[in-house]
Amino acid sequence: MAVVGVSVPRLDGLDKVRGATRYTADLELPGMLYARVLRSTYPHARLLRVDASRAARLPGVVVLTRDDLQGMDPCYGPVVRDQPIVALDKVRYVGDVVAAVAAEERDLAEEALDLVQVEYEPLPAVFDPLEAMRPGAPLIHERTLAMDAAILPGPIVHLERSGNTRSSHHVEQGDVEAGFAEADEIFEDTYTLPIIQHGHLEPHAALATWEASGKLVVYSSTQSPSQVRTQLAELFRLPESQVRIIVPCLGAGYGAKLYCKLEPLAAALARKARRPVQWALTREEVFLTIVRHAAVVRLKTGVKRDGTLLARQIEVVYDTGAYADCGPRVAKNSCHSSAGPYRIPHQRLTSYCVYTNKPPAGAFRGFGVPQVCWAYESQMDDIARRLGIDPLELRLKNLLREGDQFVTGEQLTSIGGSRCLEQVAETIGLRSAENESADLRLQSADWSQSALCNLKSQINRTQHSALVRGKGLACMIKSSTAATNSAASVRLNADGSAQLLTSAVEIGQGCGTTLAQIVAETLGLPLERVSVSLPDTDVTPYDFGTMSSRTIFSNGHAARQAALQVRTQVLDVAAQALEAAPQDLEIADGVVRVQGAPERCLTFAQVFQARFGTAVGSLFGNDDFQTRGGVDPETGKGKAAAFWFWSAAAAEVEVDTETGKVRVLKAAISVDAGKAINPRQCALQNEGSMLTALGSALFEELVFDNGQPINASFLDYMLPSLEDCPDSFQPWLVETPHPDGPFGAKGVGEAGLGPVAPAIGNAVANALGGVRIRDLPLRPDRVLSAECRVEGTQHPALGGLPP
Amino acid sequence: MAVVGVSVPRLDGLDKVRGATRYTADLELPGMLYARVLRSTYPHARLLRVDASRAARLPGVVVLTRDDLQGMDPCYGPVVRDQPIVALDKVRYVGDVVAAVAAEERDLAEEALDLVQVEYEPLPAVFDPLEAMRPGAPLIHERTLAMDAAILPGPIVHLERSGNTRSSHHVEQGDVEAGFAEADEIFEDTYTLPIIQHGHLEPHAALATWEASGKLVVYSSTQSPSQVRTQLAELFRLPESQVRIIVPCLGAGYGAKLYCKLEPLAAALARKARRPVQWALTREEVFLTIVRHAAVVRLKTGVKRDGTLLARQIEVVYDTGAYADCGPRVAKNSCHSSAGPYRIPHQRLTSYCVYTNKPPAGAFRGFGVPQVCWAYESQMDDIARRLGIDPLELRLKNLLREGDQFVTGEQLTSIGGSRCLEQVAETIGLRSAENESADLRLQSADWSQSALCNLKSQINRTQHSALVRGKGLACMIKSSTAATNSAASVRLNADGSAQLLTSAVEIGQGCGTTLAQIVAETLGLPLERVSVSLPDTDVTPYDFGTMSSRTIFSNGHAARQAALQVRTQVLDVAAQALEAAPQDLEIADGVVRVQGAPERCLTFAQVFQARFGTAVGSLFGNDDFQTRGGVDPETGKGKAAAFWFWSAAAAEVEVDTETGKVRVLKAAISVDAGKAINPRQCALQNEGSMLTALGSALFEELVFDNGQPINASFLDYMLPSLEDCPDSFQPWLVETPHPDGPFGAKGVGEAGLGPVAPAIGNAVANALGGVRIRDLPLRPDRVLSAECRVEGTQHPALGGLPP
Repeated sequence: MAVVGVSVPRLDGLDKVRGATRYTADLELPGMLYARVLRSTYPHARLLRVDASRAARLPGVVVLTRDDLQGMDPCYGPVVRDQPIVALDKVRYVGDVVAAVAAEERDLAEEALDLVQVEYEPLPAVFDPLEAMRPGAPLIHERTLAMDAAILPGPIVHLERSGNTRSSHHVEQGDVEAGFAEADEIFEDTYTLPIIQHGHLEPHAALATWEASGKLVVYSSTQSPSQVRTQLAELFRLPESQVRIIVPCLGAGYGAKLYCKLEPLAAALARKARRPVQWALTREEVFLTIVRHAAVVRLKTGVKRDGTLLARQIEVVYDTGAYADCGPRVAKNSCHSSAGPYRIPHQRLTSYCVYTNKPPAGAFRGFGVPQVCWAYESQMDDIARRLGIDPLELRLKNLLREGDQFVTGEQLTSIGGSRCLEQVAETIGLRSAENESADLRLQSADWSQSALCNLKSQINRTQHSALVRGKGLACMIKSSTAATNSAASVRLNADGSAQLLTSAVEIGQGCGTTLAQIVAETLGLPLERVSVSLPDTDVTPYDFGTMSSRTIFSNGHAARQAALQVRTQVLDVAAQALEAAPQDLEIADGVVRVQGAPERCLTFAQVFQARFGTAVGSLFGNDDFQTRGGVDPETGKGKAAAFWFWSAAAAEVEVDTETGKVRVLKAAISVDAGKAINPRQCALQNEGSMLTALGSALFEELVFDNGQPINASFLDYMLPSLEDCPDSFQPWLVETPHPDGPFGAKGVGEAGLGPVAPAIGNAVANALGGVRIRDLPLRPDRVLSAECRVEGTQHPALGGLPP
Repeated sequence: MAVVGVSVPRLDGLDKVRGATRYTADLELPGMLYARVLRSTYPHARLLRVDASRAARLPGVVVLTRDDLQGMDPCYGPVVRDQPIVALDKVRYVGDVVAAVAAEERDLAEEALDLVQVEYEPLPAVFDPLEAMRPGAPLIHERTLAMDAAILPGPIVHLERSGNTRSSHHVEQGDVEAGFAEADEIFEDTYTLPIIQHGHLEPHAALATWEASGKLVVYSSTQSPSQVRTQLAELFRLPESQVRIIVPCLGAGYGAKLYCKLEPLAAALARKARRPVQWALTREEVFLTIVRHAAVVRLKTGVKRDGTLLARQIEVVYDTGAYADCGPRVAKNSCHSSAGPYRIPHQRLTSYCVYTNKPPAGAFRGFGVPQVCWAYESQMDDIARRLGIDPLELRLKNLLREGDQFVTGEQLTSIGGSRCLEQVAETIGLRSAENESADLRLQSADWSQSALCNLKSQINRTQHSALVRGKGLACMIKSSTAATNSAASVRLNADGSAQLLTSAVEIGQGCGTTLAQIVAETLGLPLERVSVSLPDTDVTPYDFGTMSSRTIFSNGHAARQAALQVRTQVLDVAAQALEAAPQDLEIADGVVRVQGAPERCLTFAQVFQARFGTAVGSLFGNDDFQTRGGVDPETGKGKAAAFWFWSAAAAEVEVDTETGKVRVLKAAISVDAGKAINPRQCALQNEGSMLTALGSALFEELVFDNGQPINASFLDYMLPSLEDCPDSFQPWLVETPHPDGPFGAKGVGEAGLGPVAPAIGNAVANALGGVRIRDLPLRPDRVLSAECRVEGTQHPALGGLPP
């Protein structure tokens, strides 16, 4: 192949490095106002009074309060419509939007905000999802029945109808009790992960304007323009053709920019102001807008002495904050995959999505799987350790294989799991067959297995001996969401250049380049002769969204099919003109020729001349690709994935037993790309996964004090710096072609993230002689206090799950 | 039909009346510079020196001179590339662009212009096209051979290869000499029309920017985005996918904004500046950029005593100014149609497109036909008068009929000419059968036929009797250009709303509304559920251009076909789901139902659910419609038109014989719309035609003094004011369906314009007792001096055509 499989430079690269790319917040429209919002300072309170009349009297200021939302259902949300444009009866978290103003100058907007008077009646609040599930916990959403009526169509999740539990999800196979009874060893542990934030460079922004005709136009930093269009059409009771979502380049999103975020409020303000309204978040506000679910994972596993996994029972509780966002989908997705990429005959998997009085949690690269992967891959090493089996071998022994049935009942194909594991193990020096010194049980031989305290006191004596090293690995399976829908249109111009129309969002991942490669390869064109649109729902076709690493698989599939349709037309016309059979023709370098008779050829211009009489016009191809699927909400059975991600990671760490600081020396990620359309971009995705996971493994957590976030800024919230990066990083790609992927390609973006934190965790445990830290992040204080922990018992702080 | 044939309000109307529509000059890009150009003050001169070095030294100023164009062929043009981005070796008219500057402020740009030093060597110039055709006339383009090599592909025109004659066109049938020999009477007259300007409200504007990737993006007030894209791609040697033309709404164009105008210079400046460059013309510059061809029409007609037209010979000379623009196409188009809508067995038709040292002339509503229509319809009344035949009857007797062969050899269909004539005649009181008092020969009975001088002296005696009245009518045939190409894409959304992608330009004619009506009718949707794109060549498909009143016929045909494809898919899916045959289904109000069993129905959402598994996605339809055609450049035979326009106009005038002022009291236009998709918009097009033609009939002419334009501003150039409008105006529509038009529709925009001026001229002649003014405009001085003219002789000022 000429273009696919080649690491061509990114088509948008130069614009980006030169600072020429325009993001949503860079856009201006004549007469544009700037929006600012007033946010709740209470985690839970009844709104007695919202009076913006003084603010409204400022010249050039427009205010929006709940009074302006009369006569419409002002609530939105991708799964249930539980989030109002501005607070109605009460506020549900610190940061909840109470009122909004728009003014010609940002300063004036701030000034106007100060004049909005709000009277609160504080209510009891609940911050811990386990507490929130208990009977008698303060109820965060009273409007349960009304909300249930607002459930969006489609069998997405099994929704609970009472309390703070928004939804629960369940799937099982075999007889898990019988499995535990058969087991030689049982492992039962609880793992926790805190709230983290995506840390995307570009804060959310939206610019809304209403045309006099009544059409709503929103420029937005959204990852899902088609879904935002649908929801705005519903909110404002418009046909979708009267809502136009235009998406410039995004400065990353990682899930934070999926579904409606700023768009409903910006649109409502612009409607009232009769002027364009721009709303761009500050960094602090980003932390209050969307976060990753904190989770508590209780994991019980029964194994045979030879390492065969027999039974696994899992309960995962997801803290979805004050509004569901896509939390129910995260919990559902996590539920299927929570037993990991292993053949386990007996499984009972349950997950819960629970409201608390904290910021809404939604999609985050990995969509619920990093949380469960942290649990099952940490426990896997504990199992290996207790049974005396090499962790790599234990995994390879139990890994799902081609044709196996997943817990959802679907048959698996295109499985690169073992190759991923072997690659990273080899890279990090953990593959026992090839590297004797890498035997995990022999690692850090100078460490006694049981006596961390003794060791620490020894280490404290000399500066150097305080540093200990360890290695670890982990692997993962994850579904890519189904059912979804991605359409593409390809147009060939008479000069032999082509355009792809897609609503795929250029989120920093380089999809424009990769999709162009797919079209160029299919049409036999040089890459520079293919251009790819940015999303504009008035002109680019429906797309489910840039999420779940589905763009190359789904939009790419649609683009390839659309291009193939164009190719067929070109070949048919050329075959007639050249008096040859279409299958005897080839296209390369902008020329259609008879194979073996290169003098019998036509340029694209000549093909158009033959087709249309003049060398102008457009040849079209369209495809609307559905990844069919979905699971039964009662049984959890069905088809959970358009395709499955397989990946593995390994790390070597250095732990300073004096300060508790963990440093990753070496890391590797291997992902099954199916087919790497642009290998360099795939490798860079792995690099991104590694950096994101490094932060969540070692540093990141959004900390609350009685519902008040106390580190919601980049000054206080610890992202990994360049100094924290591993000295060496190896991004591996495995290629197990998928029958539905374009040229066999699957997704890569989020695949590498899941196993990194457990690999680091396993390396730390390895360095600490088997002492396990089950709570992320691996903060220095946790490392230092790990010595006080007795391996295998339940985390004291967590308690059991409610009955 | 529910939507087609209904005068729905314009979808873009509210935005426009509220001033919310953004035109090209309203757009801003960050870092944008403003361009200004230095224009030649000589009509013809060699450029000895162009030194912009002092200007370039100003901070923040970028200059562009011929020195910057080395290494590229800097010439553009739709037919021949004869116009340089800035002047190279010499300047060819007063206003020719010599150099350009771009600066952060408009004032600074003006200041910089003053610092550009130019040294000219004046050359002999020629302003009269007849003079320019003579051997020995100053040669305006010496580069004839090189220019011929630059002729664009496609058999467009027959190009002359010497002198100032850019092209000549010829078609004939029968034996014109024999025809004249058979004739009872021969009429031979010469008619002239001056240079006029389109008077579009929005001056030309372009905003060009280069993305760092090398992609050129131009926002432009162009009527032909696809053709501008092609030409910029050729100029800058880019694939068309790397050139993006975005077209906001236009504040009218009337042909002035066809093909490249400001775009090449704006793009070249932006490339040098590495910043976006906006170039917006002043009103004065518009007059120097593009005008309508002045023409000299020599018309010789042989008739039988009973009024049968036997033979007609025509020579038309078009003054195309210093650069050809589309002048050769105007001359070609005019050539076919110059004998009018009549059956004349012997015809010899010739036209010439000739360079002079005046501003370039190009497309103008009517594209060469108003010039010849002025001639043949003026002469038609003279024939009627001399033969004593009612002018309406004379026309009806000779009119081409269904199935007749046109002079080009093609067979005519869909002919509404006689109905148009009868309608306007009746309106104005000129249909003798129905209105005895309207007999043209009996009109203004108090006027002696031959003695205008006597009459005037009588009239001068009393104030009131100085006002005389007359009535006149005229009709026209015009081709709509072929071969052309218009593509359309229709996408149906799952909520039963749809989008049409087209590169048709919203030029003020309301095409967005009418195209939406076509799609809505075809898909059974309410109009407000259909949106129509503005052109953006990256996403909207190829279109030949918004010209020749072809949008509804061609883009509308493509839109209807694309919508029919979507409709077929909807019906197929619904038929399966409803267990019915597709032909038994109907679509209305967003529901597909079995005819006669309304309970068996599906919403569009249910259709999508059935088709895709979820109620999301896009259903696509595409069509690329070619109007095949073209004439042989040697013989003029072939297919000149995608369809033919038929129209007629009538007017009643009042002439002040003391001041020479002509006032139109009453006017009517009738146009054969084929099918009026939106009757009100069609009627408004007729109103626009009437106003434009009123100006050209009575007031407008761009006057030159030795090549210097002396009234190039709206202060000095006389457009008709509201006061000049007729007291009553009747816009008629005839509907003779065309087999290729959507719902039978043909074009309307320019059809009404041609016959208005001759109708007014005939009314004036009628008022003046048969005294004929053959030169436009009908200025007071011409009316007053008409008495000195002897009817039937050649215009003294013109002389004969060169041999």
